[in-house]
Parts: sequence; structure tokens; C-alpha cells
Amino acid sequence: MNIKLNPELLQRPAMVVDAQEFRAAMAQLAAAVHVITTDGVAGRAGFTASAVCSVSDSPASLLVCLNRSASVFNAFSSNQVLCVNTLASQHQHLSNLFGGKTAMDERFAQAQWTQLHTGAPVLADALLAFDCVISEVVSFATHDVLLCNVQAIHQTKNQDNALIYFNRGYCEPTAMH
Amino acid sequence: MNIKLNPELLQRPAMVVDAQEFRAAMAQLAAAVHVITTDGVAGRAGFTASAVCSVSDSPASLLVCLNRSASVFNAFSSNQVLCVNTLASQHQHLSNLFGGKTAMDERFAQAQWTQLHTGAPVLADALLAFDCVISEVVSFATHDVLLCNVQAIHQTKNQDNALIYFNRGYCEPTAMH
Repeated sequence: MNIKLNPELLQRPAMVVDAQEFRAAMAQLAAAVHVITTDGVAGRAGFTASAVCSVSDSPASLLVCLNRSASVFNAFSSNQVLCVNTLASQHQHLSNLFGGKTAMDERFAQAQWTQLHTGAPVLADALLAFDCVISEVVSFATHDVLLCNVQAIHQTKNQDNALIYFNRGYCEPTAMH
Repeated sequence: MNIKLNPELLQRPAMVVDAQEFRAAMAQLAAAVHVITTDGVAGRAGFTASAVCSVSDSPASLLVCLNRSASVFNAFSSNQVLCVNTLASQHQHLSNLFGGKTAMDERFAQAQWTQLHTGAPVLADALLAFDCVISEVVSFATHDVLLCNVQAIHQTKNQDNALIYFNRGYCEPTAMH
């Protein structure tokens, strides 16, 4: 059974939440940092993102939110594959690099890459890498939600810590007792 | 322009990623912890989740992934509203409580709640609370992706730290320099 929405509820006057208020609140939502990459007919591209989450383990799937006005949008749209490279705490420079304006070739030149199944670039020392085919796309507001089937996983053997973005700065998780 | 998927690519034989391998990898993906609540015609319900992410700030929107076989599924399906209560580091007990088998009334009895716009329970001392109407629902694999418009936001005035789940344990973020 799927959720059926009630049109009456959707027609209630919406409250307006200001974009700035929303961004200020979201800055307090701690999140892992990823470099999302692709390669294929439209060439290689990559960007920094935190809007990634697990969907299901049957089959293994996750989602990535991508702004339709992003410069990398066409590359992901055409290639239809992506790799979620979850960064370790020593990867702050890659987060900044792939979140900035540097040309694609220069971005990729500053790290070691490999491949798994789809051909999307896999960061050799990523904490985790999920190599995916984009299976379904849902447009919502300014973004496309890319629903992805995971084809292969790469996990570092190092005991690296995660890279977290929280309160507009880089953090790493410390165990609580 | 939206992404158009290539049927040929989708028909390629999929690699099988074992559910256990996927869960082991996802355990290394550090994430904030939330208690997702609802109230309405089907009564009050709440569960612990980390599969939440920001979608857009225009309009303010986020998504929550919910297993269609979860005991709370019908409550969310009927009520069509939810609140994402992002936990602070002192809320480990609430994460355990709403992630366990305790009866709903007992769960809610162990914290202070308020309301914003939709009537979904807002944890009074949540690090953040996003009060939402469920606007669109996408079924993918075992889960429904609930695309939500944020109607109101509550942010604590305390300087609380975030609660992070990473490597199968609770952590808090520590700033890096």
C-alpha cells in the first residue's frame, strides 16, 4: 500500500518559510560530506554534496539531491551513473575543491581515482564509495532527486574518521560514552 | 529540463550488492539522528531515523525515507504531516526509545512536546524541528520517499551539540582546525 495524499490538506494555505531561515536551520543539521562523481558520454564531472541518504537494502539503494541549475547537471543527466564518494576527515581540501569554481580537470588532478562497475570516478582513499546507476528521477522544487541502485561498494581499509559539516564548519565525530 | 533516463542503460544486468554488505558500508556514513513524529486522524506516532535530507530552499523542503512495512507507516500515511525533530547530543535516550519497541504513549511521555503549524509533535528542546506537510510520495524498493514542504521551524536557543550516529555508536561533532 502506498501513501495516498489528501488534496484538501495540500490546498491549505502554505506557511512561508524564508529561504534564509531554512538555510540557517539546515546549517545545524550535521551531515557527512561526499564528492559525487560521474563519467560517460558527457564527460567527467564531480561536485560536493551532503544531501545524500540511504533508501533501502533490498535492493541496495540511495538517493542524491541535485539542483537542476547546477553546472554539473547535464553531465549527470546524460551519463546516468554516479559514484557517492564519502569523504574522510583528511579530505577537507577535496570538499572545498569540488564545492568551488575550479575547472573539472583540475579538480580531478588533485586526487587518485579508480573505477568499479559503472565507470564513475571512485576516490581511491574515500571512506566509502557507492557506485550507482540512476534508476529513477523525481523533480521537486528546484531539485531532482536521483534514486540510485548501488552496483558496487568500495570501503577503505584504513581506520579513517568521517568528515562532517556542521554549523558552517568541518568537524569529525567523537565517540560518546 | 528534467533528466531523461536511457532504457538501455537500465536494462543492463544489475550487479548484486548484498544487503549485509550495504548495511555495513552505510554504518560508516555518519548522520544526524532525528525523531520523526506525526499526529492527526490516525493518532500520534514517532520513530527514530537518519534518512532525512534537505531538498530545496525555494520553497523550503526536505525528504524522509520510510519503510512501508514499518509499524508507524499507516499513521504517517493517514495524517499527512510530520515533524523532523533533530536530536541534540543529550538525547541518546530518545533515539533509543523511538527506535525500539516501547508503546507510543510511553515514548511520548518521556519528553516535553509542543506544536507549530501542522499539529505534529515538536520536541521542546530539539536542536532543530522542521514542521512539514507531506507534499509528494515516491515509492522506491521497500521504502516511500516522503517529499515535504516545511511549514515552520523551531530552533533551540541553547548552544547544544548535535547527536551523530556513526560506526554503530553515538558521537558528537568536534570542530577541526
